[in-house]
Amino acid sequence: MTASFPVPTMPAPPVGVVGLGQLGGSLAAALVAAGRTVTGWDVDPAARDAAAARGVRIGREMAGVVVLAVPLPAMARALDGLAVDPDATVTDLGSVKLPVLAELGAAYGSRYVGGHPMCGTERTGHEATDPRLFTGARWAVCLEPGTDLPRWLRVAEVALAAGAEVVPVTAAEHDDAVAAISHVPHLLAAALAAAAGEAGPLALALAAGSFRDGTRVIASDPAFVTAMVEGNAVPTAAALARVQAQLARPWPELVAAGHAVRTGAPSALRALRVPLERSALLALGRAGGAVTRRLAAFVEGYVPDVG
Amino acid sequence: MTASFPVPTMPAPPVGVVGLGQLGGSLAAALVAAGRTVTGWDVDPAARDAAAARGVRIGREMAGVVVLAVPLPAMARALDGLAVDPDATVTDLGSVKLPVLAELGAAYGSRYVGGHPMCGTERTGHEATDPRLFTGARWAVCLEPGTDLPRWLRVAEVALAAGAEVVPVTAAEHDDAVAAISHVPHLLAAALAAAAGEAGPLALALAAGSFRDGTRVIASDPAFVTAMVEGNAVPTAAALARVQAQLARPWPELVAAGHAVRTGAPSALRALRVPLERSALLALGRAGGAVTRRLAAFVEGYVPDVG
Repeated sequence: MTASFPVPTMPAPPVGVVGLGQLGGSLAAALVAAGRTVTGWDVDPAARDAAAARGVRIGREMAGVVVLAVPLPAMARALDGLAVDPDATVTDLGSVKLPVLAELGAAYGSRYVGGHPMCGTERTGHEATDPRLFTGARWAVCLEPGTDLPRWLRVAEVALAAGAEVVPVTAAEHDDAVAAISHVPHLLAAALAAAAGEAGPLALALAAGSFRDGTRVIASDPAFVTAMVEGNAVPTAAALARVQAQLARPWPELVAAGHAVRTGAPSALRALRVPLERSALLALGRAGGAVTRRLAAFVEGYVPDVG
Repeated sequence: MTASFPVPTMPAPPVGVVGLGQLGGSLAAALVAAGRTVTGWDVDPAARDAAAARGVRIGREMAGVVVLAVPLPAMARALDGLAVDPDATVTDLGSVKLPVLAELGAAYGSRYVGGHPMCGTERTGHEATDPRLFTGARWAVCLEPGTDLPRWLRVAEVALAAGAEVVPVTAAEHDDAVAAISHVPHLLAAALAAAAGEAGPLALALAAGSFRDGTRVIASDPAFVTAMVEGNAVPTAAALARVQAQLARPWPELVAAGHAVRTGAPSALRALRVPLERSALLALGRAGGAVTRRLAAFVEGYVPDVG
């Protein structure tokens, strides 16, 4: 069998979104726009009202795929007080995956599949909701040895429906990767800004584009940044050590190496056809590839079992 | 005398621009748009034609303020073959100032006044000319112990006429400052990109905003970046050491310090009135201040001596 068929032919389970801030509110709105049935909940009535205005059903009863779109410290108790179908698949949008896996894997077993969309802005809260937030973004969906593949696929399909491309990863691979491309950039931005502050007002008065670009992310809430890097401390320290080793190279070598990576063609690898099999999916992710909606024939052998 | 008067009441000497690429072409066009008489020259006939189309006189005879808008290695011989008034003030737009001072100070003595506008984009060449390039930018204009103040003022007035704000600095102060806010950011961007490359294709596939922002400047031509950092090697190494010391701090401290600098109010210091006196001008620059066109009553005691 070689013909591909698009994901939307799969039966689409309902989606529940817990937390209707920037990420959760945007996801709920994107799924509603894609024709999905979405139930949302937030402790903040204003966030509930904003979601309702975008067509999200507001309620405490959830089934199908339930997305925890709450801050990391709130993850473990996010479903308290809600009526969730005991067979629902549970996923999250947290920025680190091993700590969340430890917590939610213990609570929900094989019903838990971790996820992390690589998007978001400096803005937060339901006022920053944007149904196009996920369009074209990469969305890591975790495949552990014990992951239930049909549940993985249902989570991946939610990401695809929101407009993202799905990168299959393990939680450990994810945490190493985001240390290198997200958490260390925050620390470098902080060090660059702090050192320029030491250099004095004249330096800051002359600062132009390269300083603005290089320090932009440290304008984010410091409590959030600190929680992020400390929540992924070991991979972040390792990635920072790799940056420091690069800084010890002769400058012409360093500049050439950095330029080559920055201007290298982004991976054009897309899954035309991947068996629904853990090692093949992970190999795709390790090669820089992703499963896209348009080409998603990756459900070979998958027989939908949701009614 | 407390009344201020705007700079344009000063007699405006003609301006010559040697090199009509992005910076020189943009400056010549901006000055023409401001009503100034500008003569331009470039070894490339296409650059001359583009400048002529913007109202720049093309010719080899120059007087008044002559701006060398050529790459650093071409600076020493930029006036070869041109007919320059022996009393003309010579300035440049080079990104480091002590090496250029050593070279052009030897050639032109007190007729030389160094300068560096803090702008420009990744684009180069006369196709990237933009008369608004300098609008609101800071422009360092160097004040050495031997600088002739009326000549300094004439160069500052060219920068103001182009729309920039003038920051009085010494060449050494300038080079230390740009190491911190421009040259080190290029090295950090290179190290971040190179280390992410080591982390592998998965990391690059997940890279989003913070990686893109943190590595943007290393997309520039590596030969240009290498020449820039090596041309300012001692201050850049010192500034890099300050960044590395910051990186050794506990992360919550580091993040808080970087955030405070990045989000601190930019210096609102503007010169309402500064005597045309070296130490007062340099004190303004060291405090993060600048001389602006609108408020430029900084010519106290200055009697124009150009006819």
